[in-house]
Amino acid sequence: METIGDTSFILVYRDRRRRWLVRPVDTPKLHTHLGILDCMALVGRPYGILATTTMNDELFILKPTLEDIVMKFARKTQVIYPKDLAMIVMRCGIHSGSRVFEAGTGSGAATATFAYMVGPEGRVYSYDVSEDFQSVARRNLEKFGLIACVTLKSKDAKLGIDEGDLDAALVDMGDPWEMVKSVRIALAPSAMMAAICPTMNQAERLTEKMREEGFVNLETIEILVRNLEARLGMTRPSQIMVAHTCYLTFGRKTS
Amino acid sequence: METIGDTSFILVYRDRRRRWLVRPVDTPKLHTHLGILDCMALVGRPYGILATTTMNDELFILKPTLEDIVMKFARKTQVIYPKDLAMIVMRCGIHSGSRVFEAGTGSGAATATFAYMVGPEGRVYSYDVSEDFQSVARRNLEKFGLIACVTLKSKDAKLGIDEGDLDAALVDMGDPWEMVKSVRIALAPSAMMAAICPTMNQAERLTEKMREEGFVNLETIEILVRNLEARLGMTRPSQIMVAHTCYLTFGRKTS
Amino acid sequence: METIGDTSFILVYRDRRRRWLVRPVDTPKLHTHLGILDCMALVGRPYGILATTTMNDELFILKPTLEDIVMKFARKTQVIYPKDLAMIVMRCGIHSGSRVFEAGTGSGAATATFAYMVGPEGRVYSYDVSEDFQSVARRNLEKFGLIACVTLKSKDAKLGIDEGDLDAALVDMGDPWEMVKSVRIALAPSAMMAAICPTMNQAERLTEKMREEGFVNLETIEILVRNLEARLGMTRPSQIMVAHTCYLTFGRKTS
Amino acid sequence: METIGDTSFILVYRDRRRRWLVRPVDTPKLHTHLGILDCMALVGRPYGILATTTMNDELFILKPTLEDIVMKFARKTQVIYPKDLAMIVMRCGIHSGSRVFEAGTGSGAATATFAYMVGPEGRVYSYDVSEDFQSVARRNLEKFGLIACVTLKSKDAKLGIDEGDLDAALVDMGDPWEMVKSVRIALAPSAMMAAICPTMNQAERLTEKMREEGFVNLETIEILVRNLEARLGMTRPSQIMVAHTCYLTFGRKTS
Repeated sequence: METIGDTSFILVYRDRRRRWLVRPVDTPKLHTHLGILDCMALVGRPYGILATTTMNDELFILKPTLEDIVMKFARKTQVIYPKDLAMIVMRCGIHSGSRVFEAGTGSGAATATFAYMVGPEGRVYSYDVSEDFQSVARRNLEKFGLIACVTLKSKDAKLGIDEGDLDAALVDMGDPWEMVKSVRIALAPSAMMAAICPTMNQAERLTEKMREEGFVNLETIEILVRNLEARLGMTRPSQIMVAHTCYLTFGRKTS
Repeated sequence: METIGDTSFILVYRDRRRRWLVRPVDTPKLHTHLGILDCMALVGRPYGILATTTMNDELFILKPTLEDIVMKFARKTQVIYPKDLAMIVMRCGIHSGSRVFEAGTGSGAATATFAYMVGPEGRVYSYDVSEDFQSVARRNLEKFGLIACVTLKSKDAKLGIDEGDLDAALVDMGDPWEMVKSVRIALAPSAMMAAICPTMNQAERLTEKMREEGFVNLETIEILVRNLEARLGMTRPSQIMVAHTCYLTFGRKTS
Repeated sequence: METIGDTSFILVYRDRRRRWLVRPVDTPKLHTHLGILDCMALVGRPYGILATTTMNDELFILKPTLEDIVMKFARKTQVIYPKDLAMIVMRCGIHSGSRVFEAGTGSGAATATFAYMVGPEGRVYSYDVSEDFQSVARRNLEKFGLIACVTLKSKDAKLGIDEGDLDAALVDMGDPWEMVKSVRIALAPSAMMAAICPTMNQAERLTEKMREEGFVNLETIEILVRNLEARLGMTRPSQIMVAHTCYLTFGRKTS
Repeated sequence: METIGDTSFILVYRDRRRRWLVRPVDTPKLHTHLGILDCMALVGRPYGILATTTMNDELFILKPTLEDIVMKFARKTQVIYPKDLAMIVMRCGIHSGSRVFEAGTGSGAATATFAYMVGPEGRVYSYDVSEDFQSVARRNLEKFGLIACVTLKSKDAKLGIDEGDLDAALVDMGDPWEMVKSVRIALAPSAMMAAICPTMNQAERLTEKMREEGFVNLETIEILVRNLEARLGMTRPSQIMVAHTCYLTFGRKTS
């Protein structure tokens, strides 16, 4: 049974709104309004246990999931939500052994997700013109142990992609249509390109460009996640929801 | 570059509604209302090409994705949609090397998805009381080359699960609350259980049971996918959509 | 208690899919796959009763509501749904005594709704360049007894609106931005303009134009109606829904 | 042209979030973070104008719509949203001259809407056991000039409804099923009953009861309003939305 190490990430969980993602090595004592939690004392213990704060309050010690991790990658410019990453992974078939390209590393949330999915046999190539974004992403990926199968490049993917015969590509840039030609060359025959389009205008223009460049099975979708408050005799949907993050545009390369 | 073999699956694609998933070995000639396609002639060719029917109509020859495959697993009793499978994979963190349990093999759509994700290092254990379902699922998994990392068992998972320390579990049964105790024992500490609940009442009752059994971070969600018809100057959402397949209930085991 | 006359409309109702809107005078015998219903025999009877067909099947005899009527106005080019009409009525405050303008009579569905709402003290002015649409709408309005408070004009509203100091205006045309100047002049100070925009591009362009012309409180919304199948112990949303009819754009005139 | 009186309501509008609904008589000077607005100076002026604060900031002076008014009726226990009221009005056909019953006056938001719609020829009968709610609602209705066609009764509608042959009924109580028998007696033949159900369990139980009591065309729906941020070249849905207020259950009385 897996035990907590001093560099292991732990999700300290009380409820949906009160949760902390920390490592004993960085945060030996976690100060919360529910009291102080001695994280170093958790080293050697298994996940899933209940720990007690100095104020005698109880907190669950969980092993963080991919979603917990990805939500920590948030940056100011834009968040890619797990709901959207889930559909990109599924539709592009990103899995054990895949070779994936990404234009626009950003915070590295998608990079991390793909790295997690492809495992040691696969590889993720992620380009971003911004060295700042690249170094934030690198730090994040290192911290969560996901850097081994990632190649980060501080370069403009519009000028060409060094890799070829790729299994899938994600474009997360403000002008995704500018990437279509390069991505087309780099993808394996019949492989899927996905793009993140915050506005309908981007999806519209990208779709036209992809059609011109011979992509087929073009589809633009949005994913809505609605929470249900399931409580005995009082079940109803949550009152507020995230109504929009981005459109996802997909298409398959043909020659 | 990958070429088509006589036992390779090919997706013959014209548009969203006219698409066929076949193998040259089973369907040497594909008869469509657009003419006959000589599939055997495609052997040795790459994916992504355009092929011509006897009526001189053009069809794209694509490599099927996980989604194309999963949608072929449909059975009468119930379909698990890719949108729901995507979120289960993401939230449970099913990836290269995971060991996953499933109660209710059904058509094998979830089994196939998990097998695809976990790769050769992982394993999927899927139980179903119905031998009929198990043999249909086995045939499907064999056909798509996904059986190697799957263990199918024709037994009632309510009576106990042989495996332990599992990374994730999916329950797809009419009475998912009956599985909670067994799943709890079989899961690794802190691991995620997911369940498919077509009705609100199932989600309600399951949630109560999971809370009693010490699962935390309980959440029930539904995933809505809305298509956007992106066309220059005339972009609008599709007029009809799938409004409900099932609720997904998630929770993490604590001890 | 109101009784059925020979020119009264009756809704013959079996279930959501099997329903007929008829008048005894037009349809003395209603032929259905459930047998023949003698509608003339219903004259003098109250609404809400159960009638029997020649095949001994039972059908409810209901008084049609505004929604039942409006859904009968459907024409090929476009349907305005009750959900959208409801929000237009609410947001524009169309009620007993209102004076309302409409550009684009179409089938007359919105005209009928407004006429129904404003009652004998109010008035609806509806313009359409197509004489064909105008005569279909006139016939519909006459049939349902809603013509008395309606003025139909076969003219191009872009060339100017004869009326002034109007309480609300609805524009249902392909190029709604072309109507903004005229509507602005015809509306009472602070009154609401509403427009039906099937595409995002129309909403975008119209919004810009309304802003230029001094409309404030600009809002574009879409209304989604989701059905819940409420059944004891098996409650769930309906599996298919109408995902898009149109966007509704609203704004208030300022001087 | 209508001018502002000292007891007229005015909506002082800057944008969606900064808006105030006041009367010169109550608020001669409106203090805002944008400066002080001299409301008394607006008396005699038309609506739709731009007024200037002491800080030289500009605010629009609008005539409040029904929606502006209804949103001011909010009380702690529950809000009925305009989107829901709009559909109740449409589906029940509440209009000029209607006689409407309401069980559960609450804040009076629905009462006000119905009063506004039925006009001088119609009448709204609203019951509530709570005298507190009734007096708050009475004050609200008086303030907005909507009391004339309303009869408020501080009594338990479950014990019986004094009126009969009513055109429509709305039930907004925690146990709506308890009202079905009384409502059935009070409604005109074939008339529509509507109910507000915050939870699916209420909708489920109410539907069963209405079916037992001979209501037909039973439907439970929810209304979702999604905002579109229409901006030239950057159009996208709003990021957050109200995902649930209540289910609406409808049915028509049969004898």
